[in-house]
Amino acid sequence: MCRWLAYSGSPVLLEDLLYKPRNSLVVQGQHSHLGATTTNGDGFGVGWYGTRETPGVFRSTDPVWNDRNLRELCAQASAGRVFAHIRASTGSAVQQTNCHPFRHGRWLWMHNGALAGFREIKRELALAVEPALFPDIEGSTDSELFFYLALTFGLEDDPHTAVARAVGYIEEVARRHEIEFPVQMTVATTDGDTTWAFRYSSEGRSRSLFRSTDVSTLRHQYPDNPVLHDLSDDARLVVSEPLGDLRGAWHEVPEASGVVVHGAEDEVRPFAPQAP
Amino acid sequence: MCRWLAYSGSPVLLEDLLYKPRNSLVVQGQHSHLGATTTNGDGFGVGWYGTRETPGVFRSTDPVWNDRNLRELCAQASAGRVFAHIRASTGSAVQQTNCHPFRHGRWLWMHNGALAGFREIKRELALAVEPALFPDIEGSTDSELFFYLALTFGLEDDPHTAVARAVGYIEEVARRHEIEFPVQMTVATTDGDTTWAFRYSSEGRSRSLFRSTDVSTLRHQYPDNPVLHDLSDDARLVVSEPLGDLRGAWHEVPEASGVVVHGAEDEVRPFAPQAP
Amino acid sequence: MCRWLAYSGSPVLLEDLLYKPRNSLVVQGQHSHLGATTTNGDGFGVGWYGTRETPGVFRSTDPVWNDRNLRELCAQASAGRVFAHIRASTGSAVQQTNCHPFRHGRWLWMHNGALAGFREIKRELALAVEPALFPDIEGSTDSELFFYLALTFGLEDDPHTAVARAVGYIEEVARRHEIEFPVQMTVATTDGDTTWAFRYSSEGRSRSLFRSTDVSTLRHQYPDNPVLHDLSDDARLVVSEPLGDLRGAWHEVPEASGVVVHGAEDEVRPFAPQAP
Amino acid sequence: MCRWLAYSGSPVLLEDLLYKPRNSLVVQGQHSHLGATTTNGDGFGVGWYGTRETPGVFRSTDPVWNDRNLRELCAQASAGRVFAHIRASTGSAVQQTNCHPFRHGRWLWMHNGALAGFREIKRELALAVEPALFPDIEGSTDSELFFYLALTFGLEDDPHTAVARAVGYIEEVARRHEIEFPVQMTVATTDGDTTWAFRYSSEGRSRSLFRSTDVSTLRHQYPDNPVLHDLSDDARLVVSEPLGDLRGAWHEVPEASGVVVHGAEDEVRPFAPQAP
Repeated sequence: MCRWLAYSGSPVLLEDLLYKPRNSLVVQGQHSHLGATTTNGDGFGVGWYGTRETPGVFRSTDPVWNDRNLRELCAQASAGRVFAHIRASTGSAVQQTNCHPFRHGRWLWMHNGALAGFREIKRELALAVEPALFPDIEGSTDSELFFYLALTFGLEDDPHTAVARAVGYIEEVARRHEIEFPVQMTVATTDGDTTWAFRYSSEGRSRSLFRSTDVSTLRHQYPDNPVLHDLSDDARLVVSEPLGDLRGAWHEVPEASGVVVHGAEDEVRPFAPQAP
Repeated sequence: MCRWLAYSGSPVLLEDLLYKPRNSLVVQGQHSHLGATTTNGDGFGVGWYGTRETPGVFRSTDPVWNDRNLRELCAQASAGRVFAHIRASTGSAVQQTNCHPFRHGRWLWMHNGALAGFREIKRELALAVEPALFPDIEGSTDSELFFYLALTFGLEDDPHTAVARAVGYIEEVARRHEIEFPVQMTVATTDGDTTWAFRYSSEGRSRSLFRSTDVSTLRHQYPDNPVLHDLSDDARLVVSEPLGDLRGAWHEVPEASGVVVHGAEDEVRPFAPQAP
Repeated sequence: MCRWLAYSGSPVLLEDLLYKPRNSLVVQGQHSHLGATTTNGDGFGVGWYGTRETPGVFRSTDPVWNDRNLRELCAQASAGRVFAHIRASTGSAVQQTNCHPFRHGRWLWMHNGALAGFREIKRELALAVEPALFPDIEGSTDSELFFYLALTFGLEDDPHTAVARAVGYIEEVARRHEIEFPVQMTVATTDGDTTWAFRYSSEGRSRSLFRSTDVSTLRHQYPDNPVLHDLSDDARLVVSEPLGDLRGAWHEVPEASGVVVHGAEDEVRPFAPQAP
Repeated sequence: MCRWLAYSGSPVLLEDLLYKPRNSLVVQGQHSHLGATTTNGDGFGVGWYGTRETPGVFRSTDPVWNDRNLRELCAQASAGRVFAHIRASTGSAVQQTNCHPFRHGRWLWMHNGALAGFREIKRELALAVEPALFPDIEGSTDSELFFYLALTFGLEDDPHTAVARAVGYIEEVARRHEIEFPVQMTVATTDGDTTWAFRYSSEGRSRSLFRSTDVSTLRHQYPDNPVLHDLSDDARLVVSEPLGDLRGAWHEVPEASGVVVHGAEDEVRPFAPQAP
């Protein structure tokens, strides 16, 4: 449905991240290989942590491949933490407030997948959102509401548990509405320092998710590849699908797992919903 | 904040209604005389009843004065029932789903004004919306939520009472939140046959509202005015501000009243909120 | 590069033409089968002859598949002459003035293909445009400039010859710039009564073009197909690619030919450029 | 018609320049005091020199006051050279390629005013553009064509003379077309190091233009004003209208003059067209 990437490491020019790779996110807009849809042309968004506390978020309803302002921004801005997302709408309106990443304070959130039967459970999920957060919901997507549920369940304190509780809550509500496989997701969230990513689906057949190999290993393996020389040793990517065909550059994240990336450290651990 | 017009009568070319008058809605986009803001450039919308049951709705975030597609549509489409609205956002996102008129089945709704303290009462108002209607809310405005409350309180059966109950409910919720003057409104709604318009504010100082004089009287008064010859005897307009300076062409709708327009008949009666 | 359709016949609801067919133009926006590109998401346009002399033209830079206003327009408007086009930009800006169909008075024009080496010959082609027409050029595409050349060479009097002369002129200019195969085209143009379509390329390998079979024959062949019953006997379509898989419904237009459709009559004749 | 500002000095956050002043450019979008039009809502543009040779250019057709991406960009990006422009179209299409500033290599250009009788002289002006530059013209405005004429006449070598020759050429062509007062302009151009600004009109009644006073003088005059402490001594602004009401902060640039700003130095000298 959508495609995304999460980068952390030394500051890179956004252009190098989003336009230069062979199978870049901009290319995936028209020709995704592993996505549920070939075309992801219903808007996009980029979140980047520059010199200020709060990340910038640039979102547009244009197809990613023909937005000139994105190209300009990416030619000028560098950042050490970048989230980028291209959207294939599953029915909700194509508007900026439905584009990912969503932001709350220092936090960003993006999602590939969908909540099945969303129309039937939307109201009940909305009611579970912390009342003080409720008026901050601006769009109409399942993905944004999922974010606000995770915030309600403590995302800012313990992301792994908060997402597990949010998914558990969604599945519980859906079960009452007799929706068989409500959650289909890869999700990424960050506070600007650490990135958490999750791959899970109620059905056990989740959308693809990959994390990059350690850069120093890669550099050893490909001593002549100039791209690798510009990256710091702690540079890490988590992506919906590989950005190129460098053999050994990508590890698939297993079904039902969470990845935590902090500096050069990344850890994969099992992810399971927590029933309410 | 916004400006609107509601037309009923024999089919007119939309162009004659929206572009040709001296103080047309398109002109008011840049130079409103009576509005709370001079500029109403945050999108617009037109709803028109053509040959089908359900009205068409064309909404855009462009300023009304430079949207070419609106001009094209208006040069081609005629309709006997037209709602048109230009928006000056009071904070919520500039996106199509926040543009008026809003539609539900055969019904259209548009609003000038605002609900004060909307952030504080939004959740409580949202919960009062009929659950089956809840997932149809697409945008984030007070105006759309107000529409769904009116639908919940029976708009399709008795519009005058439903709007009175919706306003009464909003005022009741706001009172608990210590919001002094929550409702500021002129509202128009229609099922395609009858138009209901309301002028009310909790404070007793509502935005302006005018209804047109009987066309046959006007024609008698201005025998040489060609515009008036093209209109049917039952043509009626309800507007935020007069579209021109024809003396005697407009009656101000008094504070706290509702207008019902059906064919050549229009009736003004008092409007008062009904507490829950 | 692009896809288009040209309809003539009894008035049809635009929705039936653009959304309902299995391989409708809206579907082709994401999944073109025969196009040079799979995705045609860089804007679209519809021209339709309603009740007035001049056709309406609705053009947008949104991908055709998610533009709500197009859907609304198509649900309300009927026309007996319709041109529709979806764009895959070959480099020029994605903006309304670069979307087809282009209009001049009563005439519409749309193009699939490209002029090779356009940057090198653009100025010389622009200079050949009739000075009185020059300031009407609003966009930056090869297609619009081609239209203005055809107008300069007499499109309104003799379309077949005017297009032949325009192509001949372009080839002559290109030859001087040592561009091997300058013209790649299928083109459609109409004055609202007659439609002319052309398939030609300097290389002799033109983009696909099809015309529909006689409706009464089809109706005989498929007595149970409800779509065919709503069409008048003189209904004709010329399209970049078939809108469905009804066997026998489409004839391929041969390389280097022009089609003229007037009422129920359609005639195919050879097309060859005329050197200046 | 339009409003603009040109900043040079120590790097400032774009937000401080475009949003914070009392009469900021964003405010002027809806309420210009000195402009030919009150509303400047037909798009905007920002050019900024970041860490790379070529400036970034962000242009949009949204009204400046409600574009969220501009707000995001301005909250993150700092630059020591900034051009910003808000547009009130005098007829040409509202599209990104018609928004200022225009860019060529390292150069930016923006214009307030208009060329009278542009339709009549457009073709002749276009023909005078250096053929190698011609295909780079992307939009349809007089302002962009004026830029390409200035480039043709040597803008990159001697801006003052090049603009004088361009204006002289335009006036000469217009004279032959019996256009009385063809040029109305304030123009700013920069290579990223030096800024040149011009105030001139054939009629001798040019749009307003102001340059800021020396910052150290201002700081002495207003020891308590925090904004002034953040600016470097060589910070300079050239603007269509003052950004606030600090007495003594602005000098009007006289009719028929050019301003050159380089570091802390600014020089005003007479400007007169050079006939071809």
